[in-house]
Amino acid sequence: MSKEDSSSANSGAANGATRMLQTLVDAGVDTCFTNPGTSEMHFVAAIDQQQGMRSILGLFEGVVTGAADGYARMADKPACTLLHLGPGLANGLANLHNARRAHTPVINLVGEHATYHRELDAPLTADINGFAEPVSGWIKTCNSADELAGAAADAVTASLQPPGQIASLILPADTAWTDTQVTAEPNPLPVRTSVTDAQIEGVAAVLRSGEPCVFLLGDIATREQALDTLGKISEHCGATLLGDTFLSRQSRGAGRVPLDRLPYFAEQAIEVLAPFKHLILVGTKAPVSFFAYPGVPSTLAGQDTQIHSLAGVGDDIHGALDGLAQALGADKLAPPRAELALPGLPSGSLDLAAIGAAVATLLPENAIVMNEAATSGFAIPGPTATAAPHEWLDLTGGAIGMGIPAATGAAVACPDRKVVCLQADGSGMYTLQGLWTQAREGLDVTTVIFANRKYAILQVELMRVGVGNPGPKAFDMLDLSRPDLQWVSLAQGMGVPAEQATSADEFVAALRRGLETPGPYLVEVLL
Amino acid sequence: MSKEDSSSANSGAANGATRMLQTLVDAGVDTCFTNPGTSEMHFVAAIDQQQGMRSILGLFEGVVTGAADGYARMADKPACTLLHLGPGLANGLANLHNARRAHTPVINLVGEHATYHRELDAPLTADINGFAEPVSGWIKTCNSADELAGAAADAVTASLQPPGQIASLILPADTAWTDTQVTAEPNPLPVRTSVTDAQIEGVAAVLRSGEPCVFLLGDIATREQALDTLGKISEHCGATLLGDTFLSRQSRGAGRVPLDRLPYFAEQAIEVLAPFKHLILVGTKAPVSFFAYPGVPSTLAGQDTQIHSLAGVGDDIHGALDGLAQALGADKLAPPRAELALPGLPSGSLDLAAIGAAVATLLPENAIVMNEAATSGFAIPGPTATAAPHEWLDLTGGAIGMGIPAATGAAVACPDRKVVCLQADGSGMYTLQGLWTQAREGLDVTTVIFANRKYAILQVELMRVGVGNPGPKAFDMLDLSRPDLQWVSLAQGMGVPAEQATSADEFVAALRRGLETPGPYLVEVLL
Repeated sequence: MSKEDSSSANSGAANGATRMLQTLVDAGVDTCFTNPGTSEMHFVAAIDQQQGMRSILGLFEGVVTGAADGYARMADKPACTLLHLGPGLANGLANLHNARRAHTPVINLVGEHATYHRELDAPLTADINGFAEPVSGWIKTCNSADELAGAAADAVTASLQPPGQIASLILPADTAWTDTQVTAEPNPLPVRTSVTDAQIEGVAAVLRSGEPCVFLLGDIATREQALDTLGKISEHCGATLLGDTFLSRQSRGAGRVPLDRLPYFAEQAIEVLAPFKHLILVGTKAPVSFFAYPGVPSTLAGQDTQIHSLAGVGDDIHGALDGLAQALGADKLAPPRAELALPGLPSGSLDLAAIGAAVATLLPENAIVMNEAATSGFAIPGPTATAAPHEWLDLTGGAIGMGIPAATGAAVACPDRKVVCLQADGSGMYTLQGLWTQAREGLDVTTVIFANRKYAILQVELMRVGVGNPGPKAFDMLDLSRPDLQWVSLAQGMGVPAEQATSADEFVAALRRGLETPGPYLVEVLL
Repeated sequence: MSKEDSSSANSGAANGATRMLQTLVDAGVDTCFTNPGTSEMHFVAAIDQQQGMRSILGLFEGVVTGAADGYARMADKPACTLLHLGPGLANGLANLHNARRAHTPVINLVGEHATYHRELDAPLTADINGFAEPVSGWIKTCNSADELAGAAADAVTASLQPPGQIASLILPADTAWTDTQVTAEPNPLPVRTSVTDAQIEGVAAVLRSGEPCVFLLGDIATREQALDTLGKISEHCGATLLGDTFLSRQSRGAGRVPLDRLPYFAEQAIEVLAPFKHLILVGTKAPVSFFAYPGVPSTLAGQDTQIHSLAGVGDDIHGALDGLAQALGADKLAPPRAELALPGLPSGSLDLAAIGAAVATLLPENAIVMNEAATSGFAIPGPTATAAPHEWLDLTGGAIGMGIPAATGAAVACPDRKVVCLQADGSGMYTLQGLWTQAREGLDVTTVIFANRKYAILQVELMRVGVGNPGPKAFDMLDLSRPDLQWVSLAQGMGVPAEQATSADEFVAALRRGLETPGPYLVEVLL
């Protein structure tokens, strides 16, 4: 896994931690989301001394890893995390699961006991490699200070291996504190694998057939450049464009090529796909339902639908789309683009449609929308499709608690853009500590909490999986009331100004205040 | 791992989830800490219908698993948890690490995609077994509904395998929703392994030598029954009694045999152990330092100290101690017991000594003290050693964020006892969501937040590991100010009444109000 060259002697004393930090900075990694402990103190000191590395503290590791995910989705380069031994990594695993599903490059620097201390089974000793395996595409445990600079270079390369993955470095404390002369230069950047002409020609032939075709898009195919080309192709042959249900990042709004999503519920997704003779995959795989349900198929494409792959996840999607557009003679066409159309500000009672209208109307140009609104978010995509241009980030792996942290990281990556975090209350409670980091760093995030005071999706799912006649004990497990959470109080407790909205007019005023206020702001919507 | 008998046909239709719940209840497991998702809906329904099973919702899985730990430490039987797929388990791993280190019996019911859905790699698919491995002593993945009742019986047995361990059941959704006739009776309870006469006689000979001896205690050797016998032995031969630095549970206060702890810092622990020629282990292993430090030994017993084991972790400690007392002729002696001595209520400025005095003086009889006070807690053990009798629970695995959840679980186990949670602010932020569960369930927990607004232990450790001249960026990573956390606001946001204390008099009044108020209460101490 590790590259064995590119290291050279360097004058002056420095420890492993310092050498590692230098290599990371030289490779362009300049942001570290941290929650260190005793075994990482030499990394803390090295970051302290390394002017090229910004450090951002999260008060829980789920915040740290979720922020790294949101950061890299917007910065298009990895952040590193600094985590305390096995438990520190364990606390960050759920959001690393989401990052893995989003193909986000993340570099975890995970502290470990000193090499000679590991075998003693001290209380914090754990199988760090075991914790890291399920989420990591690349893992390396270093055993001497001489390895750290080279390992850092390799971790950067590994994290950027297309389409992007999680690289975890396990770093015993003595490898950090021991001096070493060994340095390392950054490795060349990995590149995406080209798609063959035959693959392109095969899809071109399908599109020329005149039979109903739908593109299903993931990876970077839902960003502006790829969507432009897809728009030309669609314009040429009438194929439908659909994004995966949950996307790492989508370019949306006025001036962008419109893109609907595959519905969440299996029955609806099956219905949407049914009319198509051909399903063409670009940066994704054949669609499956999120969960299994008794009596409902888990695969969503119909049995008569032929599935074709233009470009796999991590392939050279831009090259494949350009090639396809040329093969079809579509490359000179103008793609369809959404025109700005704002629904106007709502008034009167507050419902999801009113929230969608207000968000769409007030959304600033080039905003970043982080969507973890769950059932409350169903009315947002419609009106925002013709709002000011923006980037849209989803909860990709279903591990709730990504919204507040990822919004935090996105704001770190893009200090000149407003981040709007659409956050379900149940999911938000998982990693609410991220609000504190927003306050400390003065991050420009406006959070909308959808306070329906229940795990609403589960009340739906309880019925859908065939549970008849549930009683009060069942509903209690899906309910966040008794007592009601007071998000204004929670946010203020972490230094984030907040207010509650109970009518559409209050919501408009509150959202406007949030968007006009530099730094973080939270609006709790009572549903 | 699984037992293949004890199941019999049973009339009436019921699904796997219902059969599993029945077996758990039949085996005495009557409390389930939950945070379910779609794949666990049939378990939700089964719990709903099972009158013998109480369900308690946590708004984050770290709360769920930490509560299960605190519950089992006090109830002396396992709770089960209900967790949502890999990410739900992942969120609970840090507190399962602590439970593993405390040898706490915990049964995890971890949902999984339906057997036929797993291979489709839906977004929430993850290597659940991989996540479970590092913390579990026993894991079983069920593949048909027929297995669930028997697996439940085996999980109970596995969790109670002395000294106690974590048993994780991975339960595909279709094994829960499919009907089955297969039921299972509870298995016989596992018993602790007897210690040999030779082991006892060996230690007796050491004690008779007249050379300086110290007992180091873990497992159940720090509870009332074992301490009584140890007190007799100590009375007979003058041996010193010491508990491990962090204990699963200790019986303390007036009427109990006094017991000091091995100090946390390696240098101090080495100094404490140095005078002893013999170190006798009861329910623990040879002591090692919590972390490695440059130039400091990781093993704490001196090179001239002989180490003996009377009873290993999970052995029949009561039998070994009784045997030893008889061998020495100490069994008729009266053990030394602490006499009630209260320091009196403090006044004036608020410092750690004042807090210790107030807690000791006001501590109700038979209280449960959950200690995650970190550096702020150093002044509590002294004065409380002669306070009203109480049980003391520690953070055992060093994975911070155990205090609020474990206090929650202990209060569920012991509704007639007051729980006092001594909670460092940095650690408390990890799992603050547990306060909501305390409010929902009306649990009798008084939480004292030590708000020093820093990871104070790390500011100490930064120096101790040899980092010279740290700059502001380093201290920023160890600091919780900018902005200050407002714990009163955070607690109220979750429905827990709270107040802040800035003087000793205010603290006394606030703590008294908390202890006199039924249900949860939080006092934030500004240090």
